[in-house]
Amino acid sequence: MGRQGLGAAEQLRAALGDDMVSTDAAVIARYCQDWHGDVTSSALALLRPRSTQEVSQAVRLCAELGLGVVPQGGRSGLALGAVPDAPEAQVALSLERMDRIRSLNARDFTATVEAGVVLEAFKTKVSEAGLYFPVALGAQGTCQIGGNVSTNAGGVNVLRYGMTRELVLGLEVVLPDGRVLDLLSRLRKDNRSLDLKQLFIGAEGVLGVVTAVSFKLMPAPDQVATALLALDTLDDVIELYRVARRQCCDLMSAFEFMPASAFALAREGIPDLALPLDPAHRAYALVELSGSGLVDIEALLAQFLELAMEEGLVRDGVVAQSKAQARNIWLVREGMNEGQARRGKHLRTDLSVPLSELAAFVAEAEAAVERALPGAVCVSYGHVGDGNVHLNVLPNAAAAETVDQQIDRAKTVLNEVLDRYDGSISAEHGLGRLKKADFAARASSVHSELLERIKRAIDPASTMNPGCQFDLRVDRTGAE
Amino acid sequence: MGRQGLGAAEQLRAALGDDMVSTDAAVIARYCQDWHGDVTSSALALLRPRSTQEVSQAVRLCAELGLGVVPQGGRSGLALGAVPDAPEAQVALSLERMDRIRSLNARDFTATVEAGVVLEAFKTKVSEAGLYFPVALGAQGTCQIGGNVSTNAGGVNVLRYGMTRELVLGLEVVLPDGRVLDLLSRLRKDNRSLDLKQLFIGAEGVLGVVTAVSFKLMPAPDQVATALLALDTLDDVIELYRVARRQCCDLMSAFEFMPASAFALAREGIPDLALPLDPAHRAYALVELSGSGLVDIEALLAQFLELAMEEGLVRDGVVAQSKAQARNIWLVREGMNEGQARRGKHLRTDLSVPLSELAAFVAEAEAAVERALPGAVCVSYGHVGDGNVHLNVLPNAAAAETVDQQIDRAKTVLNEVLDRYDGSISAEHGLGRLKKADFAARASSVHSELLERIKRAIDPASTMNPGCQFDLRVDRTGAE
Repeated sequence: MGRQGLGAAEQLRAALGDDMVSTDAAVIARYCQDWHGDVTSSALALLRPRSTQEVSQAVRLCAELGLGVVPQGGRSGLALGAVPDAPEAQVALSLERMDRIRSLNARDFTATVEAGVVLEAFKTKVSEAGLYFPVALGAQGTCQIGGNVSTNAGGVNVLRYGMTRELVLGLEVVLPDGRVLDLLSRLRKDNRSLDLKQLFIGAEGVLGVVTAVSFKLMPAPDQVATALLALDTLDDVIELYRVARRQCCDLMSAFEFMPASAFALAREGIPDLALPLDPAHRAYALVELSGSGLVDIEALLAQFLELAMEEGLVRDGVVAQSKAQARNIWLVREGMNEGQARRGKHLRTDLSVPLSELAAFVAEAEAAVERALPGAVCVSYGHVGDGNVHLNVLPNAAAAETVDQQIDRAKTVLNEVLDRYDGSISAEHGLGRLKKADFAARASSVHSELLERIKRAIDPASTMNPGCQFDLRVDRTGAE
Repeated sequence: MGRQGLGAAEQLRAALGDDMVSTDAAVIARYCQDWHGDVTSSALALLRPRSTQEVSQAVRLCAELGLGVVPQGGRSGLALGAVPDAPEAQVALSLERMDRIRSLNARDFTATVEAGVVLEAFKTKVSEAGLYFPVALGAQGTCQIGGNVSTNAGGVNVLRYGMTRELVLGLEVVLPDGRVLDLLSRLRKDNRSLDLKQLFIGAEGVLGVVTAVSFKLMPAPDQVATALLALDTLDDVIELYRVARRQCCDLMSAFEFMPASAFALAREGIPDLALPLDPAHRAYALVELSGSGLVDIEALLAQFLELAMEEGLVRDGVVAQSKAQARNIWLVREGMNEGQARRGKHLRTDLSVPLSELAAFVAEAEAAVERALPGAVCVSYGHVGDGNVHLNVLPNAAAAETVDQQIDRAKTVLNEVLDRYDGSISAEHGLGRLKKADFAARASSVHSELLERIKRAIDPASTMNPGCQFDLRVDRTGAE
């Protein structure tokens, strides 16, 4: 650590106090690695403020010292958005101590919650009030609300409830100069001026620090019906989705697809997992309907499945008869991620294409990878209704190329196919530091320039999460 | 018209051609008044481009000439966002000739449509493809898609499908310097970088000209059930909404409230209107459920109404037995607007408060108006699920104060009450030129400054819809 760095860390500690500032290298290290442990880094200091006021003080001081601020939630992001990349010039700012639910109003169907609240804890509190917060994803026991908003988190319920963005009614943000922008709101409709809060949603902290969020909530779905279905092809899965979208109307809350390899991978992740279905088919769909009140969700699912059988789309299937059986079905979906993780370092992607082209894209992309990397294994699964596929590639251990080389090549091959489909390299994970170059190579010059203008307008000294999303020339004099 | 103005108009005509440019005062006048005819204005010229390329040429030339550009759709806006306010320094830019549906993809549930397409025409085309575009409002036979997006239009189906913003997948925008920003997309999920399109939605043209939009679509609801219910109080209406929200789950597409005076006003607007219900109750709710496929919407409404009767919330009611009867019920809601218009100039508002405070707010606000303006008539109606009330005030013709004085005072009185409820002065209509001062008086300095920074970052010379939303000092040298 250089002298200049040391001086800045000391100044932080002196001004902000030992409770907020940690310079213990071991502690910092824990906050400076990615979710899978593929990337490790460090930072000048770890700041853990307890209030908006403390975040404001910390950010203001960092601006004065010219230090980059890397905001962090549960650090389960998959695009390196929260991993510092310039250890002597950046601090990690964890929001984990801002963990209060400020209000929960069942009569308004709204809640206001601080950035550091863990998603699952929030969902539980909301559920205890007879309501529902629909963002649902594998990392929900770890990820935090501020991160969900800053990455515009997706997950398995997007097809019904939208991304996190669509649930946000208001935000509180600490701006790069330390000032607090209070846009919290319980209003469901508000067309006053430009909708500034939209800029900070999905911004991965490059424009400021989200410290609190107002959300809209739904009535708790007291009926949930879950089925796992076997089909012949991904084309059939997509056709089944279209039928379900119309027949089940707005009562479908999840429609996931998985390959046959899901079962073996899930068993690798969860060895004692009971397989809910014969794993010998080529494609699987996980369908969930849910609702509250007078609708009969179980009957709806039964009717829908009857129709799907009549249309010849479904080869085999199981309907959960209990919450435990439903959980078991979801464990296949979750276990396959764990199984992939146990295979070691691999390429994780988060691609989207138009729904009508999903099957063609996956077929073409998998074929291209297999041609380029014989022996590598493609695992394609994801959110059908959103046209979002996680097409992962597990390298071939016996190949001459290293794992990293194979990952790089697989990514290049996939992105080439994706470009022909006008797809997105990041459907739900964000750009972070991982995908910024691939994005920059694809964005039009008008688009890139406008993004830079916005960044410079709000963060002229580029101290907010520098290196994330953008590679800007930084003017440390602070003058515009 | 000054010499300088004439010169600019001639330059426009010479460069853009007679087909695009009109300087006929009578034609211009038609494009320079508000929806109700309360405000009339003029402009240097009327530009009617036929393509994105022509919009680009026009905007670029106006930037070079230092002319303000006021984009227009169907001119049914209620906040003067499309009415020029500096006739010699501004042109009106009508998008009405850009009226193509570029694509409609039933397999993707998406469409891409130009800004000048009339909302109703788009809804019809979408419906012919077995799909549904949910934005629905009184002016839908006139308003255009570009205006819907630029005002983030609301309407009667927001509680189920969200504002226009939530339906937008992508945009094509001509920037203030004439360059085209192409963010059109058929992707349902895309977390690449800052979501720039959000800035232009609801921006009322102050950052650029929306020329085309990609939307997500829904399956057509082939079942619709409509009821008009009589209740004792607005409190009961709101309680009924809460019951309906839970019991009917996500299958409720409209829940409007109306006062008893709705019937008399509707009769003034539509003299031969058959009243679907005894008009002697104090509060009314218009409830619509809809869906497609296997759900039984009629049965759901019947079950819900039974429950509502049991809970003692509903005093009287009628369920439409045909499309004609449903239309008749909606005509009360639409006719009351027409009836108000026939009473002459009056205060129209578009307020929102948290749902739980809607009844208290309306009671307090109406009492305050009646105290301040004896003999004036309050007409409160709107979108319960959104906490959005149009609390209109019809002046007392026999009062000593003029109509304009009464309107001003009623607005001041209402806004004072609204401020105590942390409400919005514009839930769905936008700020335009009508509400910018009231907004500026209420926004925090941090908020205002950030809005200005965004405006200056994208439109440094402030040529895009000058005078709308902002009152900025304009630097005509174009230097930042």
